[in-house]
Amino acid sequence: MKSTSPGKDTHHHPLGQHPLLAGLTDAMPLRTFTPEQLESVGAEIRDVLCNLLATRTAHFASNLGVVELCLALHCEFDFRTDRLIWDTGHQVYPHKLVTGRYHDFPSIRTAGGLMGYPNPHESVYDLFMTGHAGCSVSTAVGLRSGDVIGGQKNRRTVAVIGDGAFPSGIVFEAMNNAGELGDDLTIVLNDNKMSICPRVGSVANYLDRLRSNPFYTGLKSEVVKLLDRVPMFGDPAERLLAQMKEGVKAGLLGGMLFEELGIRYVGPIDGHDIALVRKYLLMAREISGPVLLHVVTEKGHGYKPAAEDPVYFHTPPAFKDSAGNLVTQKSDGLPPYTLHARDAVRKAMAADPRVTITTAAMCQGNKLEPVREKFPDRFFDVGICESHAVAFAAGQCKTGLRPIVDIYSTFLQRSYDQIFQEVALQDLPVTFLLDRAGLTGPDGPTHHGLFDIGYMRVFPNMVCMAPGYAAEFELMLQASLGHDHPCSIRYPKASAIQLNHDPAPIEIGKSEVIRQGTDGTIVAFGAMLEQAIAAAELLEGDLDVGVVNARFVKPIDEAMVRETVVSGRFVITVEEGARMGGFGSAFIESAVEQRLDTRSIRVCALPDRFIDHGDRSELLHEHGLSPEAIAQACRDSVPAKV
Amino acid sequence: MKSTSPGKDTHHHPLGQHPLLAGLTDAMPLRTFTPEQLESVGAEIRDVLCNLLATRTAHFASNLGVVELCLALHCEFDFRTDRLIWDTGHQVYPHKLVTGRYHDFPSIRTAGGLMGYPNPHESVYDLFMTGHAGCSVSTAVGLRSGDVIGGQKNRRTVAVIGDGAFPSGIVFEAMNNAGELGDDLTIVLNDNKMSICPRVGSVANYLDRLRSNPFYTGLKSEVVKLLDRVPMFGDPAERLLAQMKEGVKAGLLGGMLFEELGIRYVGPIDGHDIALVRKYLLMAREISGPVLLHVVTEKGHGYKPAAEDPVYFHTPPAFKDSAGNLVTQKSDGLPPYTLHARDAVRKAMAADPRVTITTAAMCQGNKLEPVREKFPDRFFDVGICESHAVAFAAGQCKTGLRPIVDIYSTFLQRSYDQIFQEVALQDLPVTFLLDRAGLTGPDGPTHHGLFDIGYMRVFPNMVCMAPGYAAEFELMLQASLGHDHPCSIRYPKASAIQLNHDPAPIEIGKSEVIRQGTDGTIVAFGAMLEQAIAAAELLEGDLDVGVVNARFVKPIDEAMVRETVVSGRFVITVEEGARMGGFGSAFIESAVEQRLDTRSIRVCALPDRFIDHGDRSELLHEHGLSPEAIAQACRDSVPAKV
Repeated sequence: MKSTSPGKDTHHHPLGQHPLLAGLTDAMPLRTFTPEQLESVGAEIRDVLCNLLATRTAHFASNLGVVELCLALHCEFDFRTDRLIWDTGHQVYPHKLVTGRYHDFPSIRTAGGLMGYPNPHESVYDLFMTGHAGCSVSTAVGLRSGDVIGGQKNRRTVAVIGDGAFPSGIVFEAMNNAGELGDDLTIVLNDNKMSICPRVGSVANYLDRLRSNPFYTGLKSEVVKLLDRVPMFGDPAERLLAQMKEGVKAGLLGGMLFEELGIRYVGPIDGHDIALVRKYLLMAREISGPVLLHVVTEKGHGYKPAAEDPVYFHTPPAFKDSAGNLVTQKSDGLPPYTLHARDAVRKAMAADPRVTITTAAMCQGNKLEPVREKFPDRFFDVGICESHAVAFAAGQCKTGLRPIVDIYSTFLQRSYDQIFQEVALQDLPVTFLLDRAGLTGPDGPTHHGLFDIGYMRVFPNMVCMAPGYAAEFELMLQASLGHDHPCSIRYPKASAIQLNHDPAPIEIGKSEVIRQGTDGTIVAFGAMLEQAIAAAELLEGDLDVGVVNARFVKPIDEAMVRETVVSGRFVITVEEGARMGGFGSAFIESAVEQRLDTRSIRVCALPDRFIDHGDRSELLHEHGLSPEAIAQACRDSVPAKV
Repeated sequence: MKSTSPGKDTHHHPLGQHPLLAGLTDAMPLRTFTPEQLESVGAEIRDVLCNLLATRTAHFASNLGVVELCLALHCEFDFRTDRLIWDTGHQVYPHKLVTGRYHDFPSIRTAGGLMGYPNPHESVYDLFMTGHAGCSVSTAVGLRSGDVIGGQKNRRTVAVIGDGAFPSGIVFEAMNNAGELGDDLTIVLNDNKMSICPRVGSVANYLDRLRSNPFYTGLKSEVVKLLDRVPMFGDPAERLLAQMKEGVKAGLLGGMLFEELGIRYVGPIDGHDIALVRKYLLMAREISGPVLLHVVTEKGHGYKPAAEDPVYFHTPPAFKDSAGNLVTQKSDGLPPYTLHARDAVRKAMAADPRVTITTAAMCQGNKLEPVREKFPDRFFDVGICESHAVAFAAGQCKTGLRPIVDIYSTFLQRSYDQIFQEVALQDLPVTFLLDRAGLTGPDGPTHHGLFDIGYMRVFPNMVCMAPGYAAEFELMLQASLGHDHPCSIRYPKASAIQLNHDPAPIEIGKSEVIRQGTDGTIVAFGAMLEQAIAAAELLEGDLDVGVVNARFVKPIDEAMVRETVVSGRFVITVEEGARMGGFGSAFIESAVEQRLDTRSIRVCALPDRFIDHGDRSELLHEHGLSPEAIAQACRDSVPAKV
C-alpha cells in the first residue's frame, strides 16, 4: 500500500482535525482513555466518516453503527495478539481509524490506498480479507482451534457478524461445530435490523422477538433464581415439577436457537453504550465455551439522514466535489448494464407469468426495487443465502416456471454446487444474471467477478453469454427464457454502449461481426466490445482490424473461430475475466480441436493474481485491456507493419 | 435406461420371490393395502435389499432404515403429482421398489441400469437427481413456491432429509426462507443418529436431547392445556405469570430450534411404525405453513448385523459370488490412492505437530479411522459442512498450523467460495486432498469428480497436482506441506500403480519424463499415467512414443510443453476430468502463450456432458481414455504411419 498521508507530524488532515485519532499509532491507548475521551474518539470517527462520505462513494451507514462496539472491543481485548474477525468487512472503517491508519485513511478505496475491507497486508490488526458474508464464525472457530492446539489459549477470539450475514448457511455449519468443540469463543451478533436491504427471513423475525422480550433485563434472572429454589425429588409428580422448572428457565432465558446449538446466548444489549458493551464483553470472555453476545445497533447511528434511510446510505454517491460544493450524481448519460437488466427483467415478467426473479439481499445493488414493487408475488429476496437461492429457483423451475437468479458474479461462487447439482445436472432452464462480472472497482478482490467464465462454462448443459452493447441485453434475456436449458448472462458494473445498428437476432452459439478487417480480428466477449471497437478505431489508417462480438463463450461459435483464425491474420481475444479457463482459453480450445494454426492468436485477459481495488478503467488499462493496450497488442501481432 | 428385467410376466426374479412388489406398477395400490399387507411389502423390500447386498456393493443400511417411512409416505400422498424429494438420495431403494421399478431393480448401479439415486429419467416419482446433501429443503421450498404461483396448491410437497445432512448450511438457509414464506411444506427429518460415520456437531446433540424428552408423548400436551387455563390480565404480576406460561410451553413443546425459525415441530415419533407415521404425516399435512416431522429410525433396521454396525453396512462389499458362495473381498493387490493418502497423512502428522486434518463426514470413505485414533486432537470431522471445513482450516492455518482438508472432488464444490476467499485470496498454505477425483463408478454423475481441475486452477496462488503412481503421493504431500501457499492433490477412486524407478524429487511446477519417444509424447496428468504407459507399450514396435508424468496442472511445466510440442511429433494429453478448462486446456494455453504450433496436440478428456454410472474402466474405455483408445489416438495423430 502506497501511503498518501501527509505524515503524522503535520496538523492538516483532508478529513478534518481529530486530535485523539491523530495520536493513535495503535489501539492500545484506548484502554487507558476515560469514558469521556472514548466518547470523543467516537465523535471524531463519525466526523471522519461524514467528511469522507461527502466526496467518496464508500460504505457509510454500517460503519456509523459500529463505532461504540469497535471502541469497546479494543478496550477489552488486545487484538495485536487476540483474534478479531469482522464478517463481511465493510464495517471496518472505525477499526482502521483506531489501529494506526488514521493518517492513511483519506486514501481508502482509491488505487494504491487503504482497502475498504480488512486487509492483513495493511495491519497486524486485520487477520482475514473479508467481503463475502458469513465466514467469520468458521474462521474464528478455526483460529481458536489452532490456538488451543498451539498452546496459545490466552489469545482470545472474537467474530463480529451482522444480522444480515447471520442466515448464511456457513454460520449454521460453524455453530454446529463450535457448539460441539466447546472452545472459548465470542461471537458478537451486530444486530442492526438490516442487510444492505431490509433483512428478510425467519432468523430476522426471531431476532425481532428476542429484542422485544421484556425479560431481558433484570427481571428474568430473578425468576430463574426463584425457580432454582424449587427442590427436585424422586417422586414422579415432583419430577414433573422439575421438568417444568427447566422448561420455564429455557423459555425465559431467550436465545434458545443458539442455546440449543451449544452456544451460550447473552443479550440483547444496547450497542451504542460503550460501558455496557465493555461489561458484557468481559462477561462473555469469562464464560467457558462459545458465547453469542447479541448487540443491538442502529445502522447510520449519529447521522440522522443515514439512520433514517440506511439503504440509501449503505454506499451513497458523493455529494460534494473536492472544492466542497454540492453536486448532483454524475452521469455520462449511458445507463449501466444493471439498469438494462432490470428493465429487461421487468418486461419479461410483464409478458410471461411464468417468470420469477430471486435475489440474495441485493435488491438495491441490482436496482430491482421497481420489479419488487410491480411483481411482489414473483419477486423473492432470500437474504444472503446464495446456495438456497439457486436450489430454490431450481425447485420453482420444476413446476414449470422460468426463474431468473440475479446474483453478483463473485457471490454466485457461493452456490457453485447448486449450479452443478440442482440446475446443470437436472438440465433445468434457470437463467442466471451475473451482475458485477468483471472489475468492480473500489471494492477490490473480494468483489471483482473474474472467475465466472471459467466456473460456468465447465458445466454441461449451461449456455454462457455476455452482451456487448445495450440493445443486446433484452434480446439475450429473451433468448435465455426461450431456451430449455440453463443459461447465464454476465455483465460488468459499467455503462452499456449504444451501437448504431440493428443487433443480429440472438442465436444460441452464434457471434456477430461488428466490422470486417483484413489485417486481423479482435474477438471481444461481452462489454469489452467497447474497448475492442475503440482499439480498431485507434488503428484506422494503420491497420485494418475487424471486430467480432462473440456473444457466447459456451457454446462457442466454432465457425467464427475458423473464420477468424486464418493464415496471415492475427486474432486478439479480449475479456474482462481471469485468463485461465476463460474466453480466450475456450477460443483456443476450439481452434486446437479444429486443427487450426493458433500462433496468430493472442489472449488479452486478466492475469493469474488477485487484482487490487482501483478505478475500473485504470485497472483495465493497467492490465492491457484499455483500447490503447488492445491496439498495441494488435500492432505487436503484425511485426512487419510496426 | 436399458431394461435388464425378465419382464413382469415371468415368475423368476434374480433377487427372489416377492409377489406384492411384483404386482406394483406404481405406488397407488399401497393406499388400499391392509396394515398386514404393508408389513409384508416391507418384508419383501428387506428381502430384496439383503439379496442385492450379497452380490453387489450398494447403499444398504440407510435403505433398510426407511422402509416403513417410505411406505407411509406413499400411502398418504400421491407422488405422481405431489412432490417428494429424497435428500442425498442413497436411501431411495425402497421408493424405487414400490414405484414400478421392482423388475428393473437387479440392474441398479450397473451400466445402463437403474441409478442408485433418484433419477427423473427413470420415473415420474423422481423429481431431482440428488447425491449431494442438504438441498432437498431448498428445492422443496421452490417447488411449493412454484405450485402456489401456478395455482397448484393441492399438490403437496415433502422433503425427506437425514440428520446427517441436516447441519449442511443450505438447510438453515432454506428454513430461514421457508419460515418467512410460510407456504405449506412437510420436512421429514429422518433421524437415524448417523451420517455415514457417527454424526457429529451440536445439531446432533440437540436431536439426542429431543429424543430423550420425557414429555414428548401425552403428558406434555396435558400440561400445555392446563397452562392455557391460566388467565392473562393487565396487572404486571399477572403479565409475568403469562410470560412464565409461555416460557413453560416453549420449554415443554421441544423443537424450539425449529419453532424459532417459523417451522412447526412435530415429534419425535417411531419411524418403524407405519400406522403411527401415517397418522403424523396426515397431521403435518393439515397444519398450515412449514412443518418439521421428526421421525426416529434405525439405520440397518430389520437386519441385525447392519443395525449393529451401520458404518460398515453403509455400502458394504459383496460377500457372495454369483453362484451364492461366500467370498472374501477381492483385491488386485495394489492399494488404492486413498490408502496412500491416509498413510502419507499419518506419517506427516507424526513428523510435524502443526499438521491437522479435517474431513466432512467422510472419515470412513477416506479411510481415516486410524488417523482419528492416533491423533484425536488434530483430527476434525465437522459433519457434512464442507464450506465450514475449508474456512475452519483457513482459521487454523492463520495460527501457524498446516491443515489438510480431505474432501471428495465433487463435494469440495460446496466450498468453492471458501477456497476463493478464505484460502486462495489470503494465500494460506492449506493442503486440499481431492479424493474421488475422476470417474467414481457406480454412484454416477453426482459423485464423479470431473470439474476440479478447472475449478481449482483458476484461483491465483493455488498449486494443483496429481500423482501418477503410488510412490509419488507421500512426496507430493511433503512438497505441499513445505510450500507456503495453498496446494491441492487430486486422485481417483482407483489403485495406484507401482513403478520400478525412483521418483524424481517433487519440484513445484516440474513434470517427470517416464519414457522417451521419437514419434510423439503422451502427457498424462495424474493416475491416467497408468493408461498412458500401457498405451505406449501397446504401440511398441509400431510407434516410439514417450510418456510424461505432468504432475502439475498449475503451475504448468512450460519447459515440458515447449519440449514436447515440437515439429514432427504429436502430443496427446490425457486426464480423467472434464475437457473444458481442464489439463489439456491448460497445456494448450501454455503452448499458445509460447507461440508453439498446436496442430500436433490432441486432448483426451471427458466430454462436455454428465457421465452416467458404470464401471470405471468401462467408462474410461467408452470415453477414449483406455490404453487402447489412447494408443488409437496416437496412431490417428501420425497419418503417414497408420
